[in-house]
Amino acid sequence: MKEQHKPLQQYLAEQAGRIEDALKTAIPANWDVPDKLKDAMMYSIEAGGKRLRPVLVLAAAEAVKGDAQASACALPVACAVEMVHTYSLVHDDLPAMDNDDYRRGKLTNHKVFGEAMAILAGDGLLTHAFYVAAQATRQHGVPAETTLAVIEDLARLAGLPGMVGGQAADVLGEQGVTSAEELRSIHLRKTSALISFSLVAGGRIGGADDRQLDALSLFGRNIGLAFQIQDDILDLIGDEQKLGKKVQSDLRQNKVTYPYLLGMDESRKEMARLTAEAKEALARAGLADPGRLLEIADYLMGRDR
Amino acid sequence: MKEQHKPLQQYLAEQAGRIEDALKTAIPANWDVPDKLKDAMMYSIEAGGKRLRPVLVLAAAEAVKGDAQASACALPVACAVEMVHTYSLVHDDLPAMDNDDYRRGKLTNHKVFGEAMAILAGDGLLTHAFYVAAQATRQHGVPAETTLAVIEDLARLAGLPGMVGGQAADVLGEQGVTSAEELRSIHLRKTSALISFSLVAGGRIGGADDRQLDALSLFGRNIGLAFQIQDDILDLIGDEQKLGKKVQSDLRQNKVTYPYLLGMDESRKEMARLTAEAKEALARAGLADPGRLLEIADYLMGRDR
Repeated sequence: MKEQHKPLQQYLAEQAGRIEDALKTAIPANWDVPDKLKDAMMYSIEAGGKRLRPVLVLAAAEAVKGDAQASACALPVACAVEMVHTYSLVHDDLPAMDNDDYRRGKLTNHKVFGEAMAILAGDGLLTHAFYVAAQATRQHGVPAETTLAVIEDLARLAGLPGMVGGQAADVLGEQGVTSAEELRSIHLRKTSALISFSLVAGGRIGGADDRQLDALSLFGRNIGLAFQIQDDILDLIGDEQKLGKKVQSDLRQNKVTYPYLLGMDESRKEMARLTAEAKEALARAGLADPGRLLEIADYLMGRDR
Repeated sequence: MKEQHKPLQQYLAEQAGRIEDALKTAIPANWDVPDKLKDAMMYSIEAGGKRLRPVLVLAAAEAVKGDAQASACALPVACAVEMVHTYSLVHDDLPAMDNDDYRRGKLTNHKVFGEAMAILAGDGLLTHAFYVAAQATRQHGVPAETTLAVIEDLARLAGLPGMVGGQAADVLGEQGVTSAEELRSIHLRKTSALISFSLVAGGRIGGADDRQLDALSLFGRNIGLAFQIQDDILDLIGDEQKLGKKVQSDLRQNKVTYPYLLGMDESRKEMARLTAEAKEALARAGLADPGRLLEIADYLMGRDR
C-alpha cells in the first residue's frame, strides 16, 4: 500500500509517535542535569497535543522528496520546533504573563514545579532546541549549510520578528487590539511564524529550491492563520471534553478574537479563503508529492479540538 | 607599535568598544519588532560591564592566528555570547529567582519594564544570540561547519549541562550547599561554562586544532572559577563605589561562597592555583600568540571590580 493512501489520522498518529519517541531521548543520557529540571522540561513536552509543528517538518521533507523515508534526517529539527513551541507555552502561562493554571486539562508547569523552575525549564527547552537542531548534521549527515540555514530561520521566526515579538505585541496591546489587521499581525508572528518555519525547514532538508521554499512559507503562514481562527471558533462553540479546557474562556477573559471582530460567518469565510490560497500556492510549486500537506490543510480547518 | 605591546587596559577598552558598537546594530533595522521589547533588551545590553566573555572570544581568535585582524570574523559570536550572558542576568534577577532590584547600580530589567517584558526580553536575547552567531558564516565567510560547531557548543554550554543546569542546581540547592566540591560544581556550570565557550569559539574561528581547543577549554574553565572566587572575595571586602553594589550582600543573603566555606586565605590560594594551571596549559598549547590571554588571566585575579 502506498504511503499516500494511508488514512490521514493514521499518518498523523504515526508521525506524532515517531516524534514523541525521539523527544524522550533528546537530552543526552550522559549529561549531568538536575533531575528536577529534566522533569519540569519533560512534563510540558509530554503534555503535548497534536504535535502539529513537528509533523509539518516531516511531512514537508517527504513532500519535497516524494519519499516517506526522507523525513528521518528531519527528525532532529522536528524535535527542535516542538521544544521551542513548548517553551513558549511554559513562559506564556507564567503568572506575569497569562497566569494560567491549566493547559490541555493539566496543571501548568509553574503550578507543579514553581515559577523559578518553570522559567528555567523554558530557558532550557529553548536553548536545547538549537543543540538538537544541530544534530541534523552531526547524526544524519545533513549538509552544514542546510542546518545552519534552518537554525538561522528558527532564531528569526521564533525570535524578534516572529514569536517573541508577537508575544510582546500581544502583551503590550492587551485589550487595545481593535482591528482585524492588528489581530492578524499578532497571529502572524505568534502562531504562523513557527508553523511557516516548520514547513520551510522540512523543505530545506528535503532539498527544496527557492521557489518551493517560498510556496511552503506562504502555505505555512496561511494555514497558521486559519489554525488560529479555528482555535478562536472552537473556544466559542467547541466541546469542552475534546478541548481539555472550558469553552468561551476567551470571552470571559475579554480576549479579542476573530469571531469577536468579524463575526462567526466572516471568520469561517476568512479561514476557508486562507486555506484555499495556501493549497493553491502549494499545488503550483512542483513538489514531488504535495498530497499529504494538502490533506493536512483541510484537516486543520475541519478539526474539533 | 605591535598590537601585543599595547597596555592591557587600552586593549580591553578598545575590544569592549568594538563589541558595544556591534551590539548596537545587532537587531536588523528592517525587522518589525515592538519598540518596548527592543528597549528592554538594549537596556540590559547597555548596562553591561567588562564585556569579559566577548573580549575573550576576540582575544582567543587573535591568539590562535597570531593576528589582531583575525578577530573581525569572530565579532558575531562575541555579540552572541554577550547576549546570552545578558539574558541570563535578566532572568536571574526576576522576582521568582533572585528577586534583585539593582544590578551594577542600575534598576534591574523587570523593575523598569515589568516582569512580562523582562521575561520576553530575556527570551528575545537568547533566541537572537543564535541568529547573530549564524552571521559569522552569512556575513564573514566563516565555514558553515565551524559556525555550526560554535552554535552546538553554545547551546550545550549555555544549556542543560551548562548555565541553565547550573542555575537550576543553584535554585534547588539554595542554603543546602555545604561543600566546596558542590559549590565548584555549580560555578563550573553557572560561570565557567560560558567563559570556556567564549575561548573555544574564538579558537574555532581562529582555526585552532583539537589540542589547542582542549587547552582553551581548560584555560576558560579555570579562569572562570578564579573569576567567581574573586567575585566572592570582592563582595566581602570590595569598594562599593567600584562594584556598583553593596559589599557583604552575599553574607546578608546567607549565600554560600568560597570565603565562607574555605576562609579568605585558602580562597586566595585556590584562585592563584587555578590561574597558574590555566596559564600553564595555555602556554604549552602552541598558540601563535598567547600573551594577551595570559595577561587577562592575571588581570582577572587582581581586579578590584
